[in-house]
Amino acid sequence: MTDAAEQSAHPESHHGYISEKAAYINRMKRIEGQARGITRMIEEEQYCIDILTQISAVTRALQGVATGLLSDHLGHCVLDAAKLGDEAAQEKLKEANEAIARLVRS
Amino acid sequence: MTDAAEQSAHPESHHGYISEKAAYINRMKRIEGQARGITRMIEEEQYCIDILTQISAVTRALQGVATGLLSDHLGHCVLDAAKLGDEAAQEKLKEANEAIARLVRS
Amino acid sequence: MTDAAEQSAHPESHHGYISEKAAYINRMKRIEGQARGITRMIEEEQYCIDILTQISAVTRALQGVATGLLSDHLGHCVLDAAKLGDEAAQEKLKEANEAIARLVRS
Amino acid sequence: MTDAAEQSAHPESHHGYISEKAAYINRMKRIEGQARGITRMIEEEQYCIDILTQISAVTRALQGVATGLLSDHLGHCVLDAAKLGDEAAQEKLKEANEAIARLVRS
Repeated sequence: MTDAAEQSAHPESHHGYISEKAAYINRMKRIEGQARGITRMIEEEQYCIDILTQISAVTRALQGVATGLLSDHLGHCVLDAAKLGDEAAQEKLKEANEAIARLVRS
Repeated sequence: MTDAAEQSAHPESHHGYISEKAAYINRMKRIEGQARGITRMIEEEQYCIDILTQISAVTRALQGVATGLLSDHLGHCVLDAAKLGDEAAQEKLKEANEAIARLVRS
Repeated sequence: MTDAAEQSAHPESHHGYISEKAAYINRMKRIEGQARGITRMIEEEQYCIDILTQISAVTRALQGVATGLLSDHLGHCVLDAAKLGDEAAQEKLKEANEAIARLVRS
Repeated sequence: MTDAAEQSAHPESHHGYISEKAAYINRMKRIEGQARGITRMIEEEQYCIDILTQISAVTRALQGVATGLLSDHLGHCVLDAAKLGDEAAQEKLKEANEAIARLVRS
């Protein structure tokens, strides 16, 4: 999705805001694998404490992806909006702050 | 995995401690699907805030599985150990408490 | 608070379930001091990031107190209930599991 | 601390970045009171589950203060830095992102 036609067709799109996109996809593939591993552990009724350890690990991995993406978002979308004016920036920030509050609570 | 042969072959196994095993597997299958959805959102560079919302949702779903499994564990393994004596129970509890601390922190 | 009169006056009391009570009170006194420190930092409009660092520290300290108390609770009240029978134990566990879920979410 | 002399003496100070400072101080005073209440509950050996409920409540209240202050910080310090140039903004954001990661983990 990097060709110019695509870009111009979606003037509001956020193509390119994710730094090191391939790295995030790798992290998510690993998380998918861990999730499948947990399902299998439950199917095999492995020891509960070991399953909980895996769930804590996946949760932290997901939080790492979330804080990384958020960092990219603040550094691109929000700073770009700041250049357009305070109102645009405040709107973007409101949305980001709500996402942060959800992450902190979850 | 409830037949007697299986049980006796694994005297230390924890078969049967998970109440409603099928329900947990369904919840994990849904979580796996959500994780794949997040990977796809990153591949398609969908809007960051929407991805974060999905990550918060998966995190909460995983926490729900974890607290559910922990509840089953305390109600089966730990209470069973309590019947064997205080020492056995304290050992199981130590392990459970460490898992709880990891979940609270993650 | 260990004399028999006190005990019999409060048949439902939980006197004595907290191991190292003085240590918990010290930890809480320190947390109180940290909370007052945060209030003062806000009054003096100290740098936001430094205030957030303090809030993270207090949050973790509170979580440490919570998981410690919970551990004492499971090791005393819940195991004691286990000796009274499965029903009593399950009731105590239900309550403990709800508290754990609240801690994991918060 | 709003007089001009004070301001000029601290060219790096962040006076004024906190919107509704009095409201934050009130929230912190309430949190201080809740912390003292928890200490007293431990001194009186009140029921463990009730203490845990209070700790969950204080934790959430602290998280609310943290996400509120962070929101003010992003809306003032970070957007102000954005006007000074990308480098200044990126530096502020790096610091904010680290604080967010600590809050999400704690």
